[in-house]
Amino acid sequence: MKQSQLFTKTLKEKVKDEISINAQLLTRAGYVHKEIAGVYTYLPLGLKVLNKINQLIREEMNAVGSQEVQMTALQESKIWEDSGRWSDKVVDNWFKTKLKNGTELGLGFTHEEPIANIAAKYVSSYKDLPFSVYQIQTKFRNEIRAKAGIMRGREFSMKDLYSFSRNKAEHDQFYEKMKGVYMKVFSRLGLAAETYLTLSSGQPFSKYSYEFQTVSEAGEDIILVDKEKNIAINKQDYNDELVKITGVNPQKLIEKKAIEVGDIYSLGEKYSQAANLKYTDENGKEKNVYMGSYGMSPTRLMGTVVEVHHDEKGIIWPQEIAPFKLHLLNLKKDLTDSEQIYYSLQKAGFDVLFDDREISAGVKFAEADLIGIPYRLVISDKLGSKIEVKKREETEVKIITLKLLLKEIS
Amino acid sequence: MKQSQLFTKTLKEKVKDEISINAQLLTRAGYVHKEIAGVYTYLPLGLKVLNKINQLIREEMNAVGSQEVQMTALQESKIWEDSGRWSDKVVDNWFKTKLKNGTELGLGFTHEEPIANIAAKYVSSYKDLPFSVYQIQTKFRNEIRAKAGIMRGREFSMKDLYSFSRNKAEHDQFYEKMKGVYMKVFSRLGLAAETYLTLSSGQPFSKYSYEFQTVSEAGEDIILVDKEKNIAINKQDYNDELVKITGVNPQKLIEKKAIEVGDIYSLGEKYSQAANLKYTDENGKEKNVYMGSYGMSPTRLMGTVVEVHHDEKGIIWPQEIAPFKLHLLNLKKDLTDSEQIYYSLQKAGFDVLFDDREISAGVKFAEADLIGIPYRLVISDKLGSKIEVKKREETEVKIITLKLLLKEIS
Repeated sequence: MKQSQLFTKTLKEKVKDEISINAQLLTRAGYVHKEIAGVYTYLPLGLKVLNKINQLIREEMNAVGSQEVQMTALQESKIWEDSGRWSDKVVDNWFKTKLKNGTELGLGFTHEEPIANIAAKYVSSYKDLPFSVYQIQTKFRNEIRAKAGIMRGREFSMKDLYSFSRNKAEHDQFYEKMKGVYMKVFSRLGLAAETYLTLSSGQPFSKYSYEFQTVSEAGEDIILVDKEKNIAINKQDYNDELVKITGVNPQKLIEKKAIEVGDIYSLGEKYSQAANLKYTDENGKEKNVYMGSYGMSPTRLMGTVVEVHHDEKGIIWPQEIAPFKLHLLNLKKDLTDSEQIYYSLQKAGFDVLFDDREISAGVKFAEADLIGIPYRLVISDKLGSKIEVKKREETEVKIITLKLLLKEIS
Repeated sequence: MKQSQLFTKTLKEKVKDEISINAQLLTRAGYVHKEIAGVYTYLPLGLKVLNKINQLIREEMNAVGSQEVQMTALQESKIWEDSGRWSDKVVDNWFKTKLKNGTELGLGFTHEEPIANIAAKYVSSYKDLPFSVYQIQTKFRNEIRAKAGIMRGREFSMKDLYSFSRNKAEHDQFYEKMKGVYMKVFSRLGLAAETYLTLSSGQPFSKYSYEFQTVSEAGEDIILVDKEKNIAINKQDYNDELVKITGVNPQKLIEKKAIEVGDIYSLGEKYSQAANLKYTDENGKEKNVYMGSYGMSPTRLMGTVVEVHHDEKGIIWPQEIAPFKLHLLNLKKDLTDSEQIYYSLQKAGFDVLFDDREISAGVKFAEADLIGIPYRLVISDKLGSKIEVKKREETEVKIITLKLLLKEIS
């Protein structure tokens, strides 16, 4: 895409009303626009990144045979009353609204109840189990404070997967598998090195649950990390039992601030019971379905990547989710040579942002660093027909031919 | 995909609480699940269709150089007060909710105000114009009645595109182009033959506007069609001036019920004025940006396709948006042969739904007709190594080899 066509522009100055690094950089670089605290519009560059994150997650969920659906934001009270989660005293972050006839509706903050009710329509026999479904959908949570940019949203995107098993043993098998699937997602997002499987407690439906925590100064949680065992405990839940389960060495735990980037819950029969989600087993006996839920927020992940991968100049996108792989900067008076290279790169299948604007080289370099595309390519008079190549996270440049460049980046 | 893995099942009986054909068929075939009237979950088959519609629309919007964004459902009052559309007396289908501190928020029913405010951040010079942006996003409208299935939603998806031009002449050029783009979308959706460009009036910001109306008994509008001129007038707005503009022959107008599948508006300066969206022209003079808005709802389009393309047995999907291109039915006791063909078809790049279940042939045939995949392929003992092929909308079958089949459907 030609940068002269992009309708957003970068902002030179610091954004006044943002305290988080992710919102600062994403706003300045033109990825997002804040509507309300915790409520962001995704601009063309931002939506490109978000869609790549969604696609990456989708691939991993499809790989375990999960089926994608799309549930609704608007929720009737009945199914939430059945599970005990309708009252604002129980769930303190509902957004509620009303139909014209006065009927109160809620805006879904999660979807265990609706998916259990849908499953109840289709599950009757043990032959219908196990399976899992997921969605990538917009959630609403009425947070009192929302100061963490796109990391804690009042309106945000969530990948929520729900598993349906015949019994605990079958559930446990899938639950264990999902730990690996989650780590694979974090790995593809460039977050694996900083992300720990973290044991925590306090869920109403099971004594313990696992979170995935990415170490970052921007984190709102504190975790105790055992680097050797590559596992952590959420500090607020720390106790001897968790030490025993995780096998950490209490002497070697290091306290770190961290961002919760995912959580996986064993729900047991709580929601299937409320939704009357039963099946008949091999012996004709009726049983409750055993459920699990597995969350991760694509928008929070995008914010986390920025928190973990940036420097004083701007964002440093991992290749797989960068809005473009190549940022081509023309410094020549005439555009002809650069355009030729731009078309050659596109023809070779690369997604290129082409800075074809008539502005100073200094501004182009500064903007390229702020936007954070993995490879910066410069075309200028002093380079002749060669191209200057620099990786965003490195300082050294290479001056090579187009042919060599194509070989290098393929 | 193996049908035994699909977590949804078809329903034999009529759905009690649905009066529309689209909701009847889509619910019975397992495409959608109703949460509340006008609020539907998209199940795996339904989401596949919806994503194909979205992709098709996206291609056509990208082809005119439009840039995709994603705005927010939650809306603050200020920008809507500035344009005069916050009050429930002016807009009678707002859903409103509240932040914890009591601040009232609305759920976006359209997005002229937010996009004008975002554009105001980036547009300053005539060099920044013209451009257009679009989104495919969830809208909320507090409809009193919602009895038309997925065609009139309280929560539904909308493709809304907004154009920004320097003046009326530049706007008109884009507006005319969009008429063609819209017809191309309807053509790809298999709706072109029944869809008329329809003049209507009564918008607050311009005297006339164009709608696209698809003739169907399920329609809530009545249009007067001139078949020779291939144009229509919305009956409720019929007057001599509209006759003159459209050039229809008043003697030859035929009254038809129709579904509004798209609308395109010249907004003029109304929203740019409210959002202070100005630019400096070539002579240094400050001017308001001239806006247009262009809507079509992917979920309504999906419902419309079902209303137009079905028979007494079920849905008849046009190829481009069918959930699968091929429906392979195994009628043999043993799955081996069918599985081999299934893998061959997948290897050849076809998206196949493979009915591998142990149920009667009659049920398989009935379900295939209900689900409506374009090609039905049957493998049975009496066919030997050949395959019986039938198009969903035809009655005659062909019995051919796999090799010939691949040639035929490619």
